[in-house]
Amino acid sequence: MSADGGSGPVAAEARPVPHGPDVPGLMDAFWAYETALMADDLPTLDALFAPGPDTLRGDAAGLLVGHEAISSFRGGRGGAPARRIVRVEVRALGERHAVVVAITELLRGGRGQQTQVWERGEGGWKVAVAHVAVAAPALDRRIWRVVGTPLVPATTEGGPLTGETVAVKDLFAVAGQRIGAGNPARLAEASPEPRHAAAVEALLGAGAAVTGIAATDELAYSLAGTSTHYGTPPNPRAPHRISGGSSSGSASAVSLGHASLGLGTDTGGSIRVPAAYQGLWGIRTTHGAVPRDGLLPLAPSFDTVGLLARTPGPLARAADVLLHDVDGAAAGTGRAGMLAGAALRTVPGLVELADGDVAEAIDAALRRWAGSRRMERAAAIDEAAHTAWLGAFRTIQAREAWQAHGDWVRVHEGDLGPDVAARFRTARTVTAEQERRAREVRAVAAEEVRGRLGGGVLVVPAASSVAPLLRDSAAGGPLIEAQRERTLRLTCLAGLAGLPAVTVPLRTAAGLPTGVTLVGPAGSDVELIHLAAALEETP
Amino acid sequence: MSADGGSGPVAAEARPVPHGPDVPGLMDAFWAYETALMADDLPTLDALFAPGPDTLRGDAAGLLVGHEAISSFRGGRGGAPARRIVRVEVRALGERHAVVVAITELLRGGRGQQTQVWERGEGGWKVAVAHVAVAAPALDRRIWRVVGTPLVPATTEGGPLTGETVAVKDLFAVAGQRIGAGNPARLAEASPEPRHAAAVEALLGAGAAVTGIAATDELAYSLAGTSTHYGTPPNPRAPHRISGGSSSGSASAVSLGHASLGLGTDTGGSIRVPAAYQGLWGIRTTHGAVPRDGLLPLAPSFDTVGLLARTPGPLARAADVLLHDVDGAAAGTGRAGMLAGAALRTVPGLVELADGDVAEAIDAALRRWAGSRRMERAAAIDEAAHTAWLGAFRTIQAREAWQAHGDWVRVHEGDLGPDVAARFRTARTVTAEQERRAREVRAVAAEEVRGRLGGGVLVVPAASSVAPLLRDSAAGGPLIEAQRERTLRLTCLAGLAGLPAVTVPLRTAAGLPTGVTLVGPAGSDVELIHLAAALEETP
Repeated sequence: MSADGGSGPVAAEARPVPHGPDVPGLMDAFWAYETALMADDLPTLDALFAPGPDTLRGDAAGLLVGHEAISSFRGGRGGAPARRIVRVEVRALGERHAVVVAITELLRGGRGQQTQVWERGEGGWKVAVAHVAVAAPALDRRIWRVVGTPLVPATTEGGPLTGETVAVKDLFAVAGQRIGAGNPARLAEASPEPRHAAAVEALLGAGAAVTGIAATDELAYSLAGTSTHYGTPPNPRAPHRISGGSSSGSASAVSLGHASLGLGTDTGGSIRVPAAYQGLWGIRTTHGAVPRDGLLPLAPSFDTVGLLARTPGPLARAADVLLHDVDGAAAGTGRAGMLAGAALRTVPGLVELADGDVAEAIDAALRRWAGSRRMERAAAIDEAAHTAWLGAFRTIQAREAWQAHGDWVRVHEGDLGPDVAARFRTARTVTAEQERRAREVRAVAAEEVRGRLGGGVLVVPAASSVAPLLRDSAAGGPLIEAQRERTLRLTCLAGLAGLPAVTVPLRTAAGLPTGVTLVGPAGSDVELIHLAAALEETP
Repeated sequence: MSADGGSGPVAAEARPVPHGPDVPGLMDAFWAYETALMADDLPTLDALFAPGPDTLRGDAAGLLVGHEAISSFRGGRGGAPARRIVRVEVRALGERHAVVVAITELLRGGRGQQTQVWERGEGGWKVAVAHVAVAAPALDRRIWRVVGTPLVPATTEGGPLTGETVAVKDLFAVAGQRIGAGNPARLAEASPEPRHAAAVEALLGAGAAVTGIAATDELAYSLAGTSTHYGTPPNPRAPHRISGGSSSGSASAVSLGHASLGLGTDTGGSIRVPAAYQGLWGIRTTHGAVPRDGLLPLAPSFDTVGLLARTPGPLARAADVLLHDVDGAAAGTGRAGMLAGAALRTVPGLVELADGDVAEAIDAALRRWAGSRRMERAAAIDEAAHTAWLGAFRTIQAREAWQAHGDWVRVHEGDLGPDVAARFRTARTVTAEQERRAREVRAVAAEEVRGRLGGGVLVVPAASSVAPLLRDSAAGGPLIEAQRERTLRLTCLAGLAGLPAVTVPLRTAAGLPTGVTLVGPAGSDVELIHLAAALEETP
């Protein structure tokens, strides 16, 4: 093998002697495959995998089913990491099958294991099932920027969050660490923060430890998680699909069990969308109820601190901590019991804005919940009005984003991903007059949304679709932009009204994660989590 | 499944419908296995794995061969992580075999894939081959304490180490980070360091980035890497074996490709032993040649800064950086060309101190090298004198270690692992008079060792054995202590004489990593690496 391992056959003297029976022709096929792999010889690789829809290939990114899917994956990855085979175990499985387990040493360091089930047909030996594993990197840079064991220990023992671990979105100040905001140029210019953000301080003071600083879409101005700088964080419950964002790293860290809590933000859905895409519980808190000191703004009129968790218990406990100030006095919380007996209210037409599989999952949840809660229908939202509300949301968001970041973006447009750069180009054009008119529309919208609560809780899709497939999801690409538009139409409602929103994970009929959001009255945050948890516990 | 997933059968309604053919009896066996796994029912698990020496089970820790090895592994792990099966693919392989690929979701978060080849015999379906993979944690705490992407960027662009990444042993100051020295109590009491250690500063200034802070044996007072606090770092080239220490995390990080350079220390072998155990290149620098500012001491008379790498090129470039001060002037380096024509000198009896497989590997290397370098035999070392030298090394090391850490250890003995605690108990008893006599012996030993160089380079085993098996390697256990004693007899020679030592990775006949050390004259550090690299490049 050449030094870069990129081409040429595996010299016979470099091949370990296989342990196991001598199966005629098998080792020739095995080494032909290995040679083709190192040369990224796609036709030979395709020819050596069994044709048809039953062939399997799995790795840490997920399981691919069928020759076509495997071939398409190979065509897109640009070659396997250079490696050498250091050990081979062969087991014959009758006349026509055999399994070959190979241990690999990667030239970049680390080892791997590859288990292949081979099948002998008319065209010779071919791989029917492959399972490929390699050593993980020190840190998955798609998810994390810095991690410790922990990065910051809790400042209290025996608090309500003792034992919990937090993935902090890279918009919050962590003392001694820089804020990168998802952008390498910004990170390079940043200085270490002198103190923790208020939300970080509160979690540490309640006994949680900070595991690390997690990826965000640039300046939080996206709902996709498809970072052009660090890559899209993995979505373990929906392999080969995007993470959702902008609290993308926090969400994936929680999904993977790297942390039990994700600290994020939600301006236009940045908690609710990754929660839905990844099957997590999430809360966007009441606007203004959790202090935003030490948090990089996107659009202060809508920015809120949010949380993600795998189960509702830690979510409720952490929300309770964030919503109370250091003296334990209630900050932005409403009165206890304010949701007792509250009805679940649907708005005609809203569930239908989501894709069929998402709408079906929500309808099924509503049928389950109807046994334990009164169900009501709120007034429909006129389509033209709804469009105006969304426009007002986007106008105010853009205007404020430009006020917050315009000076920096002016000299750094080339450092931004195409999607976020395009948003700022638009943001730059928003006039004061447009903003003024948008704020008028927003005031009406907020009243209209609050009115539809009618003492109850609104049920809204958390996102317009399940997580799009990674391969269809170029940052700024048409699929991502279309889903963002459709999702914002749903998520802007809580934002316009400044209301708390709890996302409850659901599954589609095909088993993919999705979610529904319960929007409650201001200050009902923790009660809203308890209400949602009780709904899901109802037999 | 119960909430903790620890027991009880997998309820039929929680089982996904398998994709693939209906193979009689197979799914019953599959679910029986899964139920037994979640209950840690070892007899049932053993019964469902095929008997005999050919059964295979692989995971990230390595490949186990034979029913007995697999059963023993299972008995020692204390149960598999709780999980649920979310997808099952079945493929029939003739009449008597089938493969089942299952996707798992772990209750702690993350997903996994399990590929099983089943075989139908008289006792029903049994697993013949299993490959188990689960999502990696955010950070492997056996290796790392804190990691970033990078943790500290280079301070120069276009330097000799641009593109290199460094795993810094947790004894060196990194600005803004604490020094943990492998002990959680010490870490908890530590304050962030105001500036980088000199060696860290030099590497950053030459273009390298610091990936993170890597594990060390406590206060560097071990050669094993078997930390009772953080676990033993993995050894990817020798799975199921210990890492070696005390630069254990730096070594494993380099082996795994998490970093290209390991910055460590070598007092009594803490670079040379992990290099040998893991098949890495390593250098212990000339005593005093690299500034130790910002480095926590163990025994300043012997402490040296050292480096680890997968190949000699980066090792030589990094050593060159460390051995020159910031102005580029030579600090502790000797004259260029000082090893031109130098002979390789063996000391009768030294190679024989190592195990047979290690000695054979070294003899084979010497035969390879005889073609390109003059070989000479130095005078043998009298056994009683050698024992006295080792004693002097240990006495001075212990005395200085107690001077450096006694005050802290006095109030923290219960916070130390048993091996290091025992060493400090002994260290505490060393008297000034014992130290004085030891220094006299040391002066003689240093002269004797330097004399044996005779203008050439000494060839010494890097460690007395290959890496011991993890299962035999309790910290402070008899195997580890015995290997430490035997290895120190070899490694103390360079330490006593203050000489640079370069470890060259070798393989035993069985393919396990081992190493040989070349000990050169003071200041020959970088030339010694070039000499060693040239030897290994000789056809």
